[in-house]
Amino acid sequence: MDPSLPDGAPTDGPVADVLARNQEFYDAHEARDLERMAAVWEVSDRVVCIHPGWPIMRTYAHVIESWRRILGGPGRLQFILSNVAVAIDGDIAWVTLEENLLGGPVPVVVAATNMFARIDGAWQLVVHHGSPVGH
Amino acid sequence: MDPSLPDGAPTDGPVADVLARNQEFYDAHEARDLERMAAVWEVSDRVVCIHPGWPIMRTYAHVIESWRRILGGPGRLQFILSNVAVAIDGDIAWVTLEENLLGGPVPVVVAATNMFARIDGAWQLVVHHGSPVGH
Repeated sequence: MDPSLPDGAPTDGPVADVLARNQEFYDAHEARDLERMAAVWEVSDRVVCIHPGWPIMRTYAHVIESWRRILGGPGRLQFILSNVAVAIDGDIAWVTLEENLLGGPVPVVVAATNMFARIDGAWQLVVHHGSPVGH
Repeated sequence: MDPSLPDGAPTDGPVADVLARNQEFYDAHEARDLERMAAVWEVSDRVVCIHPGWPIMRTYAHVIESWRRILGGPGRLQFILSNVAVAIDGDIAWVTLEENLLGGPVPVVVAATNMFARIDGAWQLVVHHGSPVGH
């Protein structure tokens, strides 16, 4: 089993689907693949992204533009996820976890909240909020 | 109309209800009233609170214990809310906003995500995530 998954996480069903989409978000980031990153997000005006230390960004267009700049920049990060928990209520799921970031000048831990909305059976990211731990 | 509310926010209906509960969260904090703060939160294991710079806290018991310590401490803050947006999907609502904190040594801006779940018609806080802007 993927060691980043919470203990006892099911291997199929909605929780597994949400965790797979959550992993895809980080895989797209690690791969620096803007097309994959854009495909993770819901295409709507209600999406919100708060990068660590950044102000609030809203709407699909603004959020993806921020990813275009981040993924096109010089940094290259590896994410090791820990302390992952999932909750689902209707067509909304929220995942909270720690992103252990390697690749920068010093290791950094970011606490993240990722909300997904289910539309036509697919979970799309609607909120990503990351905040540095210990700063 | 309350200047902290988003432009064109309705004065009744679910959005108004969510905004009122969101305001109650900050009012309880300003009043340093643990009982009011505890009443804002859903009593469940799925609640999550990430204070600015802190690691993830989960479950009602742990989250309220953190508020007991915070509200019992020496600090005293005033919150001026800005840039408020609300979305509702089924029985889940999410509010994103800036907390402009006065009362500390320097003014601080915190970007916040607050998720509420509707149970028996009442919106209860299930996720609060705050992160300092510009750090």
